[in-house]
Amino acid sequence: MANEAGALVRVAGMFSQRGFNIESLNVAPTEVSTVSRLTLTTYGTEDVVDQINRQLLKLVDVIDVIDMTGDEHLELELALIKVRVQDSSASIEVLAEPYDVAEIRRDGELATLRYLGEGAELNTFVAILEDAGILVELARSGAVTMTPGADGLHYHDPNGEAFTRF
Amino acid sequence: MANEAGALVRVAGMFSQRGFNIESLNVAPTEVSTVSRLTLTTYGTEDVVDQINRQLLKLVDVIDVIDMTGDEHLELELALIKVRVQDSSASIEVLAEPYDVAEIRRDGELATLRYLGEGAELNTFVAILEDAGILVELARSGAVTMTPGADGLHYHDPNGEAFTRF
Repeated sequence: MANEAGALVRVAGMFSQRGFNIESLNVAPTEVSTVSRLTLTTYGTEDVVDQINRQLLKLVDVIDVIDMTGDEHLELELALIKVRVQDSSASIEVLAEPYDVAEIRRDGELATLRYLGEGAELNTFVAILEDAGILVELARSGAVTMTPGADGLHYHDPNGEAFTRF
Repeated sequence: MANEAGALVRVAGMFSQRGFNIESLNVAPTEVSTVSRLTLTTYGTEDVVDQINRQLLKLVDVIDVIDMTGDEHLELELALIKVRVQDSSASIEVLAEPYDVAEIRRDGELATLRYLGEGAELNTFVAILEDAGILVELARSGAVTMTPGADGLHYHDPNGEAFTRF
């Protein structure tokens, strides 16, 4: 979308007004200074997701929309997770073993972990930490995604001039 | 903030109406089902940032605000970066060497990299790729942050009942 203050308001407002869900969302600058990239995860029936895509494309400031649900895409999520460790951190190491997790900070009995991986697996890992009664604080990025190869988003500048990136 | 559809609209709307900048933003569920965590990076004079913090706290649905500018905090950002590699990827390896970067996908002359590190260093790495003329597409998470130790955000549920996490 255009890198304009009102763009995020319009996107979030459309979801709010129509009762669509936003599970997570991130927005940041891109390689084109006039363009921001917004990635959000939502849920609903196929019809609802189709409606969301159509409504997004109608919004001022929205340049292109890709629905990654069905298509092959790269997806990663980052999280910082604070946990309470008791006498030793052995149990954390066991619980975290199947995941790409590193302890990046220790303050007394509080350890901060860095998680990197798929969002669905992060949900599982967080549930495991909750069940173990050691989860204290969770900060997650939301999904960061990219289509492989040349099928990226199509950017245009606000004057309507097309950027050909490939 | 409360995990409500209108919360993001209010936050983004306040920035838009008052002409404050949002450099990047992410919002996702937390360990408390009624609470979402929103992290944003902005810039401005100390007075402007103080105004932003005060205005945020006035918003319905906003539960607590921490300004991490001056305080010690953990901060990481994730990015997926598509680059055009020519005959060999040797140059990418040299350019990426100072950073935590992994190639996670190759499609012909297009490689997708995963970056993990500080946002300021990501800016530098992206500028290097742009200068080399090989940057194709950039998707970044925005900053994911956490205060070390027990000085986290103070959560309350929408009924005003305080959560004591520590």
